[in-house]
Amino acid sequence: MQDRDYMQLAIDMARSALGQTSPNPAVGAVVVKNGQVTGLGAHLRAGEPHAEVHALKMAGEKANGGVLYVTLEPCSHYGKTPPCADLVMKSGIRKVFVASTDPNPLVCGKGIARLKEAGIEVQTGLLEEEANKINEVFFHHIKTGLPFVTLKTAMTFDGKISTASGESKWITGSEARADVQQLRHRHDAIMVGIGTVIQDNPSLTARIPGGGKNPIRIILDSKLLIPLTSRLLNDKEASVWVIAGRAHDREKASDLRGLGAEVIEMEGSRPAVIPLLKELSRRGITSLFVEGGAEVHGSFLKEQAFQQIIAYMAPKLFGGRDARTAFGGEGISRMADAAMVEFTDISKVGSDIRITAKPARR
Amino acid sequence: MQDRDYMQLAIDMARSALGQTSPNPAVGAVVVKNGQVTGLGAHLRAGEPHAEVHALKMAGEKANGGVLYVTLEPCSHYGKTPPCADLVMKSGIRKVFVASTDPNPLVCGKGIARLKEAGIEVQTGLLEEEANKINEVFFHHIKTGLPFVTLKTAMTFDGKISTASGESKWITGSEARADVQQLRHRHDAIMVGIGTVIQDNPSLTARIPGGGKNPIRIILDSKLLIPLTSRLLNDKEASVWVIAGRAHDREKASDLRGLGAEVIEMEGSRPAVIPLLKELSRRGITSLFVEGGAEVHGSFLKEQAFQQIIAYMAPKLFGGRDARTAFGGEGISRMADAAMVEFTDISKVGSDIRITAKPARR
Amino acid sequence: MQDRDYMQLAIDMARSALGQTSPNPAVGAVVVKNGQVTGLGAHLRAGEPHAEVHALKMAGEKANGGVLYVTLEPCSHYGKTPPCADLVMKSGIRKVFVASTDPNPLVCGKGIARLKEAGIEVQTGLLEEEANKINEVFFHHIKTGLPFVTLKTAMTFDGKISTASGESKWITGSEARADVQQLRHRHDAIMVGIGTVIQDNPSLTARIPGGGKNPIRIILDSKLLIPLTSRLLNDKEASVWVIAGRAHDREKASDLRGLGAEVIEMEGSRPAVIPLLKELSRRGITSLFVEGGAEVHGSFLKEQAFQQIIAYMAPKLFGGRDARTAFGGEGISRMADAAMVEFTDISKVGSDIRITAKPARR
Amino acid sequence: MQDRDYMQLAIDMARSALGQTSPNPAVGAVVVKNGQVTGLGAHLRAGEPHAEVHALKMAGEKANGGVLYVTLEPCSHYGKTPPCADLVMKSGIRKVFVASTDPNPLVCGKGIARLKEAGIEVQTGLLEEEANKINEVFFHHIKTGLPFVTLKTAMTFDGKISTASGESKWITGSEARADVQQLRHRHDAIMVGIGTVIQDNPSLTARIPGGGKNPIRIILDSKLLIPLTSRLLNDKEASVWVIAGRAHDREKASDLRGLGAEVIEMEGSRPAVIPLLKELSRRGITSLFVEGGAEVHGSFLKEQAFQQIIAYMAPKLFGGRDARTAFGGEGISRMADAAMVEFTDISKVGSDIRITAKPARR
Ligand SMILES: [Zn+2]
Ligand SMILES: [Zn+2]
Ligand SMILES: [Zn+2]
Ligand SMILES: [Zn+2]
Repeated sequence: MQDRDYMQLAIDMARSALGQTSPNPAVGAVVVKNGQVTGLGAHLRAGEPHAEVHALKMAGEKANGGVLYVTLEPCSHYGKTPPCADLVMKSGIRKVFVASTDPNPLVCGKGIARLKEAGIEVQTGLLEEEANKINEVFFHHIKTGLPFVTLKTAMTFDGKISTASGESKWITGSEARADVQQLRHRHDAIMVGIGTVIQDNPSLTARIPGGGKNPIRIILDSKLLIPLTSRLLNDKEASVWVIAGRAHDREKASDLRGLGAEVIEMEGSRPAVIPLLKELSRRGITSLFVEGGAEVHGSFLKEQAFQQIIAYMAPKLFGGRDARTAFGGEGISRMADAAMVEFTDISKVGSDIRITAKPARR
Repeated sequence: MQDRDYMQLAIDMARSALGQTSPNPAVGAVVVKNGQVTGLGAHLRAGEPHAEVHALKMAGEKANGGVLYVTLEPCSHYGKTPPCADLVMKSGIRKVFVASTDPNPLVCGKGIARLKEAGIEVQTGLLEEEANKINEVFFHHIKTGLPFVTLKTAMTFDGKISTASGESKWITGSEARADVQQLRHRHDAIMVGIGTVIQDNPSLTARIPGGGKNPIRIILDSKLLIPLTSRLLNDKEASVWVIAGRAHDREKASDLRGLGAEVIEMEGSRPAVIPLLKELSRRGITSLFVEGGAEVHGSFLKEQAFQQIIAYMAPKLFGGRDARTAFGGEGISRMADAAMVEFTDISKVGSDIRITAKPARR
Repeated sequence: MQDRDYMQLAIDMARSALGQTSPNPAVGAVVVKNGQVTGLGAHLRAGEPHAEVHALKMAGEKANGGVLYVTLEPCSHYGKTPPCADLVMKSGIRKVFVASTDPNPLVCGKGIARLKEAGIEVQTGLLEEEANKINEVFFHHIKTGLPFVTLKTAMTFDGKISTASGESKWITGSEARADVQQLRHRHDAIMVGIGTVIQDNPSLTARIPGGGKNPIRIILDSKLLIPLTSRLLNDKEASVWVIAGRAHDREKASDLRGLGAEVIEMEGSRPAVIPLLKELSRRGITSLFVEGGAEVHGSFLKEQAFQQIIAYMAPKLFGGRDARTAFGGEGISRMADAAMVEFTDISKVGSDIRITAKPARR
Repeated sequence: MQDRDYMQLAIDMARSALGQTSPNPAVGAVVVKNGQVTGLGAHLRAGEPHAEVHALKMAGEKANGGVLYVTLEPCSHYGKTPPCADLVMKSGIRKVFVASTDPNPLVCGKGIARLKEAGIEVQTGLLEEEANKINEVFFHHIKTGLPFVTLKTAMTFDGKISTASGESKWITGSEARADVQQLRHRHDAIMVGIGTVIQDNPSLTARIPGGGKNPIRIILDSKLLIPLTSRLLNDKEASVWVIAGRAHDREKASDLRGLGAEVIEMEGSRPAVIPLLKELSRRGITSLFVEGGAEVHGSFLKEQAFQQIIAYMAPKLFGGRDARTAFGGEGISRMADAAMVEFTDISKVGSDIRITAKPARR
């Protein structure tokens, strides 16, 4: 086991907790003394101990003189817990390897500075890229104050999301649909347009083996057209937030609240994307999984308000000049205005293809 | 070098001649005696010697007592050249390895039978799958009497082939476009709809380094709307065939012929796909590269008249509920009627993705 | 994250503690509830909590209704700690995945049986092979009552371990020598013949970055020829055990004990391998790293008393019909008596090659 | 197909003829015009046409204006055939890609210069490394005037080539022994010491499926001890050369000549390696496969007279301080005098390992 191996283990532990620590980042920590592991830990849930706390506690006196490998810079401010930097100092740790520097302006570099002042050797950058990737959601949220937005779609090889007559179930195979459940589980909230609710009456839960964490279900429904008998209003599986426009039906809103749903009123007849994302962030949403339909995707595309697009493509073709496609809205006229992305992953999922893209770096 | 290695070399030589032997298959041959290569050959062009002829000629007397590795069953009938099976017999070859059996009903198994009767040991099946793949075009044509049809499209990540205002140049990058030139070079003919000619005024030639073989250019133009000043009618780079409907303008047809184009009249106001393919086959076309647009692709999709679809997908999104998609026509209504394919290759080409699919095996 | 991923994490944690848990096995454990990790743990050192204890403690109430992934069957007997099986039962865990079944006759199957009786679902075999590999040392020791023996050698491409005049430092490069330090660190004890001590005066410690765990140093020295000024008798880096024959020098033994060394008297003028291994096992050695010389290796080979051979081969040749080779002794006469092995790993280590072999499975 | 693909095909054809063109190099050539292959060729045997001749002949008029891909610089001097450079010029070829430049001082750069003078574009270096590798034997011979020497051995995991009692058949498995046959086939001559002939009475032929080319068999036998009934003196499978010292038995020499063997007298009681290699080269040997025994290998090692060592290592151990090893002789005393090599290939061959090494680049 070398430095790299210990940090890899810390990263693997952090990755295992991805999606369950919001609004905190997923972090892992390993304590090593004399070539022997003496402590292991990960941050598992907001409000619970940080990774360093678990690892140093397990190490006990055997932290003294040891080395700490931690995927993210130790915190230096008082939050729900005392600062980990202080804990590291008290433990007698002599050297700290840090993979990612904390982007949080309250923390950035301060934890490391504090450790160095205390005479502890600090080395940054070991497996940094991999560690950054684990917390891309957290980092985006901290930097922009907006949720990390993933647009998800499922289409045919010829780019259609429903047949000419509107049939759309199921375009992709069971493996791709199971893959989507995992993605739901990792996001704080899921969003669909009212059209999807009316047409499919979905439950929008994360059905994964062993039971998953259900995201908050957010419905874009400016006119409050959602049927009171909708499955998701009645199944109590997870919270429901309905995004209404200014001129909505007060009585219907009251009925919805009676069913336990939250009704959030936004400006305008059709809520604008960025103000909505700000509002969601204010309410604690750090990651948003947008499942369409076409007009919802079109709105996010128009504002280039996305950090990731995941498209499942099925080995079938519908044809049809009027069949619906995944991204609606008015679209662009001039090629030069196209939203540029880069493909970051292409995988076979069952007999479908999953293509992941991120906004192109300029 | 083992049997496998020699057959691999024969296949590699055959592959190098892919697309230039039509209507004949690409074939390679190697002669080995006492563990030493004594002859190499490939069929390079219709009318020229078969692979076996080249290889046995190079071997000369050192074919006697040797082994022949050939990618396709030797011919046994008199065509433009005398049957290779007889030549093999005369050469003194003692054993023949055959990769693919000839699907041609005039040949199938007869060449092998002839060799066996002459006391030559014949072993089939070595690297058969790879050899079959090289000649999938030839085999399809022999079995069905129709050209092997490849539908090609270039679309955005959201399945669009032009912006809302109709801009479509260039969706994909230069690497993908160079890749298309190679594909054109390998097909006997290229087909587009009249809309593409009017809008883009393309030359439809295979622009590859060192100069390529230009396919015959076929325009679907039932009403003969093609402008007489079109680039492809005047550049003399390759033949032009215009497919007209029954009620076309006789005078325009005459003008087109005056420019050197062939005008082919088909039944109906809009020619049906299958009869058209039969006519093309009759005129010697074994492979057809269909480059759209949307309605042309829609027609081929409706008849499931394709052996391969190659889609280039660019890392950009246009959005737009009315933006055009690659496969038009009326399309299907019921999901159960979708054309099923299987993805056979997914590759990165520059920053684009190339996805190849073939009709699903039932 | 799926069952496989959680078990993989448990295995990765266990692997990180390899070599530091003797005489206990290295074990990892993960607790998951509703698709979220709630506990992580590994057994880090004999006398400290078992993996399950750490993981269930971290999970706390969130173990109730959860799933436990553990690399080795939970213990069911009272040792230094209460049985983990009971702890699992009390925690409310509803399902347990077990990778390896414990080979310990005191445990084998009993932990699993106990869990099942308590109504807990138990599934065995997930990633079993990988988990077994981690504990091959522990499993061998439990099954045979003998230490797991690794014979290590470093030789030239022509199989020599020293030049004609006896020079042997250094045959291999620095990367290979660093690799050996890691192996020393993972074994309970290291063994060399007295010749090696006299010629090289080595320290036989595990010099790894950050400081390693030093194995007990065992010297085969039937006549007690070891110089009292030897480095390893005076450096206090780790225990020294000197294996003496029956007729040894009592006064010298007393001097050695005065220097802190243990003198272990065995039967015969030259101690037999198997009784010696038994004695070492009785004294708590579960893994033994034998570093030669040639006659020591020859003795172990003759008795086929090894579980692994690791040979480093340097890109140099010495030549010399009388130059020493790695395995001495009398050797076999008849080819049929050769010790048969199988090569399980071949790797490049710097510019040397490392070849690992295990006794051939019959 | 791109430039790279055509040159790869030329290389593959050349490789297929490796070992059969001595003393000439193996060369391949491809002619391409307008993106279509019009000629293929390889040099198959000394005295037969060069690769360019075959390829240009197949291309005929279609060489005019085309591109030639050739693995070795075209020859420019009159040998058994007129210079290829002139043929290329006459053919109308407009561009030549050359992989390797000819090391032959009679040729080096002259062929290329001639082509350039004639206004033909020449580009060198495409796939040069791979092309150089194919002709390493030829290049070595041209540069040094000595044969390319491969030392081959088969040993146990502990570096032994026979048991204490001298048993040595078979150390390696059938796959490794078949591999050796391929190597024999590729060399002009095979060499063993008289000890091997007396002990094993081998035939030293290349037994490969379909029959191989047998190398000349050379016996180092300074005192002419070879039994007249030896298999290789009587089987007529290939020439036998016996290397005698100055003071040999004239009568025995005469008997040997009577059996068809050549007796070559060298200076000294034991012929020196370098003068012997010169003599062999003078007699047309460009590659020599030395199969031992230990003393023969020791002599070549002492003079560092080898270009390649191929060792097969079997998964078995003999032990034995006096068992024979692959490289005998006196060997070196000081580590600093070791012959340094680098490992260039390590492969599994059946259950054995094959390790290839070349002299270290200084
Ligand atoms: Zn903290
Ligand atoms: Zn033929
Ligand atoms: Zn336990
Ligand atoms: Zn030439």
